[in-house]
Amino acid sequence: MSFAAVDVIRAKRDGQVLSDAQIDWVIDAYTRGVVADEQMSALAMAILLRGMTGPEIARWTAAMIASGERLDLSAAGRPTADKHSTGGVGDKITLPLTPLVAACGVAVPQLSGRGLGHTGGTLDKLESIPGWRARLSNEEFRTQLRDVGAVICAAGDGLAPADRKLYALRDVTGTVEAIPLIASSIMSKKIAEGTGALVLDVKVGSGAFMKNLDDARELARTMVELGGAHGVNTVAVLTDMSTPLGLAIGNAIEVEESVEVLAGGGPADVVELTLSLAREMLAAAGRTDVDPADVLAGGGAMDRWRDMIRAQGGDPDAPLPVAPETETLYAAADGYVTAMDAYDIGVAAWRLGAGRARKEDAVSAGAGIMLKVKPGDPVRRGQPLLELRADDAARIEGARELAHGAITIADQPAARTPLIIERIGLPMVQASLTS
Amino acid sequence: MSFAAVDVIRAKRDGQVLSDAQIDWVIDAYTRGVVADEQMSALAMAILLRGMTGPEIARWTAAMIASGERLDLSAAGRPTADKHSTGGVGDKITLPLTPLVAACGVAVPQLSGRGLGHTGGTLDKLESIPGWRARLSNEEFRTQLRDVGAVICAAGDGLAPADRKLYALRDVTGTVEAIPLIASSIMSKKIAEGTGALVLDVKVGSGAFMKNLDDARELARTMVELGGAHGVNTVAVLTDMSTPLGLAIGNAIEVEESVEVLAGGGPADVVELTLSLAREMLAAAGRTDVDPADVLAGGGAMDRWRDMIRAQGGDPDAPLPVAPETETLYAAADGYVTAMDAYDIGVAAWRLGAGRARKEDAVSAGAGIMLKVKPGDPVRRGQPLLELRADDAARIEGARELAHGAITIADQPAARTPLIIERIGLPMVQASLTS
Repeated sequence: MSFAAVDVIRAKRDGQVLSDAQIDWVIDAYTRGVVADEQMSALAMAILLRGMTGPEIARWTAAMIASGERLDLSAAGRPTADKHSTGGVGDKITLPLTPLVAACGVAVPQLSGRGLGHTGGTLDKLESIPGWRARLSNEEFRTQLRDVGAVICAAGDGLAPADRKLYALRDVTGTVEAIPLIASSIMSKKIAEGTGALVLDVKVGSGAFMKNLDDARELARTMVELGGAHGVNTVAVLTDMSTPLGLAIGNAIEVEESVEVLAGGGPADVVELTLSLAREMLAAAGRTDVDPADVLAGGGAMDRWRDMIRAQGGDPDAPLPVAPETETLYAAADGYVTAMDAYDIGVAAWRLGAGRARKEDAVSAGAGIMLKVKPGDPVRRGQPLLELRADDAARIEGARELAHGAITIADQPAARTPLIIERIGLPMVQASLTS
Repeated sequence: MSFAAVDVIRAKRDGQVLSDAQIDWVIDAYTRGVVADEQMSALAMAILLRGMTGPEIARWTAAMIASGERLDLSAAGRPTADKHSTGGVGDKITLPLTPLVAACGVAVPQLSGRGLGHTGGTLDKLESIPGWRARLSNEEFRTQLRDVGAVICAAGDGLAPADRKLYALRDVTGTVEAIPLIASSIMSKKIAEGTGALVLDVKVGSGAFMKNLDDARELARTMVELGGAHGVNTVAVLTDMSTPLGLAIGNAIEVEESVEVLAGGGPADVVELTLSLAREMLAAAGRTDVDPADVLAGGGAMDRWRDMIRAQGGDPDAPLPVAPETETLYAAADGYVTAMDAYDIGVAAWRLGAGRARKEDAVSAGAGIMLKVKPGDPVRRGQPLLELRADDAARIEGARELAHGAITIADQPAARTPLIIERIGLPMVQASLTS
């Protein structure tokens, strides 16, 4: 069935529900270049401002999956579970989580991305390990999944090519922040990668793309429904991103913090979230008989980490790059740390060189921010609050004020926000899908 | 001042008012190709769905004028006045009106367009006259305006090039129907052409782009304000387009009907609107001392028509093309014609060949519809209602049902809609601008 692109755009512009045939056609025609970029961007803006129904989002996602291949991971010989985070500041959870879940007997096929705006990217972090490479062929991906049980790599060109094209377009046309487009983008890639179960870490707060709980909940529900509709056992966990995760925000320094967790140490919040998400992944894959805390304590996760890094050419024992320029910022008064704005810290780390201004830029492996305190901590005047790290002094100049201003010190301690806010599973959402 | 296109798009998307600097930048950058088509189409969709304030529209229009040249028509040696119609079915008023106003002593610099969708185009109609050419250089345009006092031609490439580019983009991206974009597109061209006064014929009804009175009124007010802000004495007249104008809908047949009006005959509605708009143009140009009805009766308008056609290479005495295939449709019952849907008649004429499916298509000179009755007329069973004309029989097949269905016959006559609904002048609108 064929349509005029302008009729599909006008239908959505006027608030109509697109038909399955219209959605199938527009995604396929866009992938083939029959629908032009300027038509798809107008449609994306109309979707952003007019919204989409659940069935429309489901069909849109299915059409994006159908634009490419869907991997078969049965050769892994065991259940598979993946995790996706919607992006945060200091969010290195994928690094300790992937080998930990693999060590518990569930294979983790983790296709990751690069940093976007003020949020870090898992591939950027791992690339600070000498020799490690992000690109694997489908064959290498499946072989490593079978032999090591854990892979973190870039998505291949054959997976959801419509999404790849649309994602790049949305980035330059102000159409990133649409829940139907965010949900279908994430889920089309995760479903196409072939995982059997999926745990979504949906971030909420200043450092997340979803700034409020209602939006995060809507995104989470939408994605859980999409996963279920495609036979992927999907659970979402809403977690706080008003404060950075852990103490390290950068690339190499986040790898170091992850290795500390694998060694049985590391910041309490990183350990807590890693274990919680590991339990969700194991449960979603049908393995409730093993406690990831025991496996972590027993060293099995660290062994699996080293195997995984080596399998992709990396040297887990090589020293990581260190930024030559550092500067410590100090508390100006006595009191309690009541807030540490994740967005401002994320932007400061990005300005220090941990993120990229344009898609084609390289990131600095050593740049970033090391926190010396966390919300709730008492501080004394002159006590170190954080350390800025960069490859050149000018970047520290450009980040200092923002980083300092991100930390609020008050006379009295504030109530603590729980890290894990809410869990959204399939049964509840299935009910809303059929209502 | 320079901006990131994505920030301008996001600002409008989120309902913000764009700054003068943002508007100037985005129009200039789009004209130069720095802002890409896919970015401008996303912005156009955001403008369509979020709207623009009066000052934003004024700045947008000024930026489009500034993208090209603004003509100086002082060499015409007399006041100038132009007319623009927002497009209708059977709307040939420009043809008799232009020479009539010129014969009254006011020069008419009429830059016209081609047919769009179901609406006819003045240039398409005139091109059915053997030898007549639509393209003039700026120098030819000014010389003819001085010597004949009347020109109807295509707009040159130097006038509002930003609008030319944006108009083509809107056509394929579902962003035509935005009042700020329609108003700024029309007014940027009319202001750049250099006319001193302007009368806008804003059509309302099924055959118009504005289907309801509120939208038409908003568009009219917006354009009157824009004209006033640029020193063009502008008046808008809202006129009914629920029924086609006159009895001829096509190209050559509309020229014939126009010549009948110039000869002192023609359908009453065409004569009425021609004289009303002529009076508005003369008043807007400061000439209230001459009655166009006298000039029309005296033959001065017909003389000016012949001069105008000859000046552009046309032969006013040459026979016009006639369509070889015709079919008459008849009344199925006795009664009164209560409605004649302008949109359906327009689409039927377009299918017969009077309009084009794609920009690059040619139109048929002879194709169209000759009405034999008008709303209010009593009819007897078997009486002719209209005649379809086309270059081949298949086109008649494709238009017959639609044309027949456009005419409603009932037992009792219906109340008549007035042709001229409302007049919107500058004083009233100036007050709303400052409120």
